[in-house]
Amino acid sequence: MTSPADFEPTLPLPPAAAPDLRARVQAAIDAKTKPLGALGRLEALALQLALIQGRELPRLEQPQLVVFAADHGIAAQGVSAYPAEVTPQMVLNFLAGGAAVSVLARQHGLALTVVDCGVAAEFEPHPLLQRLKVAGAERGSADSTQGPALTTAQCAQAITQGRALVAALPGNALLLGEMGIANTSAAALLMARLSGEPLSVCAGRGTGLDDAGLAHKRAVLQRALDANAQSTAPLAALAALGGLEIATMLGAVQQAAALGRVVVVDGFITTAAVAVAAALQPQILASCVFSHRSQEQGHRRWLQQLQVQPLLDLDLRLGEGSGAALAWPLLESACRFLAEMASFESAGVSRACD
Amino acid sequence: MTSPADFEPTLPLPPAAAPDLRARVQAAIDAKTKPLGALGRLEALALQLALIQGRELPRLEQPQLVVFAADHGIAAQGVSAYPAEVTPQMVLNFLAGGAAVSVLARQHGLALTVVDCGVAAEFEPHPLLQRLKVAGAERGSADSTQGPALTTAQCAQAITQGRALVAALPGNALLLGEMGIANTSAAALLMARLSGEPLSVCAGRGTGLDDAGLAHKRAVLQRALDANAQSTAPLAALAALGGLEIATMLGAVQQAAALGRVVVVDGFITTAAVAVAAALQPQILASCVFSHRSQEQGHRRWLQQLQVQPLLDLDLRLGEGSGAALAWPLLESACRFLAEMASFESAGVSRACD
Repeated sequence: MTSPADFEPTLPLPPAAAPDLRARVQAAIDAKTKPLGALGRLEALALQLALIQGRELPRLEQPQLVVFAADHGIAAQGVSAYPAEVTPQMVLNFLAGGAAVSVLARQHGLALTVVDCGVAAEFEPHPLLQRLKVAGAERGSADSTQGPALTTAQCAQAITQGRALVAALPGNALLLGEMGIANTSAAALLMARLSGEPLSVCAGRGTGLDDAGLAHKRAVLQRALDANAQSTAPLAALAALGGLEIATMLGAVQQAAALGRVVVVDGFITTAAVAVAAALQPQILASCVFSHRSQEQGHRRWLQQLQVQPLLDLDLRLGEGSGAALAWPLLESACRFLAEMASFESAGVSRACD
Repeated sequence: MTSPADFEPTLPLPPAAAPDLRARVQAAIDAKTKPLGALGRLEALALQLALIQGRELPRLEQPQLVVFAADHGIAAQGVSAYPAEVTPQMVLNFLAGGAAVSVLARQHGLALTVVDCGVAAEFEPHPLLQRLKVAGAERGSADSTQGPALTTAQCAQAITQGRALVAALPGNALLLGEMGIANTSAAALLMARLSGEPLSVCAGRGTGLDDAGLAHKRAVLQRALDANAQSTAPLAALAALGGLEIATMLGAVQQAAALGRVVVVDGFITTAAVAVAAALQPQILASCVFSHRSQEQGHRRWLQQLQVQPLLDLDLRLGEGSGAALAWPLLESACRFLAEMASFESAGVSRACD
């Protein structure tokens, strides 16, 4: 139950951008031919991207949408509307190009990678698939109602593999996606433990539980919290309550931020990985763009707690990275208006009176 | 002050889609490999597009973003933060490719057309520019604090020209944009007259008025309402209080809907044109996708009154069609998931338990 000796819980983040960069970018935004602030949230997004990249004109290159997939022992407790066999079935659907995220990635030119972080199946090799299973958890995490879902060593291995994955990917943007039957349970448990909110807030209907299913899910999750009462520090909570895809994603987020890349967060489960990262290193949130507010009930509150504002609010509750993909054109628009819009001076347009 | 004898206030709308089309499309959506309803608002959008086009697999072809530009006599009353000379300056900026909407149209492959509906300038010919000035209002509408902004004949001419414009454009989607210093005043006046809401709700800061400017604007708008107290029917209100770009846009919306095209509405001013259209023909709203909720204060209430829900909420207040362009990829995503996603059957994915 110990981590490898050389495991570091965080990675060093890049130095802050030059002190005057914020002012220079804001001045460039304000000089564009539009009323001050008239592009609203797109202006804040452009500024954020400039600060992440440390330059006045951010550019997005070779965006990578990574779907982290794993199975969860707690699924055996009947906490999902879908059977666990759907996790490997959906992995095959991603690879075949028929899932929502496959369609959206094609639409927006996002390179898609699917990562087997511990799905209860073995897949044939495929160009889009990476096998990053964890020793002793090849078919998924353990049932957290019976004790820790992962050992400390397993959790550390997943994080390390997530870092290596991103370090080997090209480009400067990582879009987060996930698949794993019962992973809204793992995310809700992490939210309850990290945020202190009650399960009545954290645990929602996932992919479509009815009232009875939701009540059952909350009772199961309470047992998991009780069975892991001592695991309160961020990484201990992640190992005890989280899942393999969330741990691998944490490593991916850390590596992307360390490399100065932008991280595009999807819904509730990807927010769990980012919330663990932020519990370890609050400043990592500066690298994260929150793509949407999910219909999953805990997500709104968690985003508020993290003091972040998502771009879209479309009642999505699919995961896979679908919300991150849908928001992607807004990031491109933010870069483009900075690079391509005329200024009042260059276009000969009069400024506001007074 | 009379319309041309052959002027019809509305155009016939296409017959309703086959009665079972809604059920067939909904069944196709529900068979996709995702939990029921998990794509949220994107599913409702896909259904709407299918119903507009009368087919199970809607396709978007040659989308046309049209920026309707005009000047407003009421600008002389100091109701805008910007001088009226900005209207022609921005027209040149659109044509030169340096405005926000120019950038966004390029990003998304939207054909851009700029229409001079009555700008206080004469422009050199340009491939993107159409000159649709109205007799006697070549340099803009009259000051509505002194009487009607347009005569009935001028209003009818603008509407007729908007219809002809769209009839000559290719494609099956019209995205609305506009430019005209003081046109939030014209839109606020129309909202007050059509919706019955007080000016304290309808009139906001436009492109950036301060508190004193806003108070002055509301006092001016009250004088315009008083000066045109008899003009209460939709088209009479449009002539008395609206502007040339709003009237031309009304005709464009009517023609697009009549041709079975989707209309993508931008912010407050384009909503004014659609609200007049809906006052004449409520069912025309079925052809309209509302792209975003503007920061302009009256917009939220007006959308509620129209019982429509916008896709984006990004605190935009620019106009030009910028919000319509930003939302465009969501329409494409709606069509693509219907056309390209696998079904549970085709992908061999298990459905929900029970």
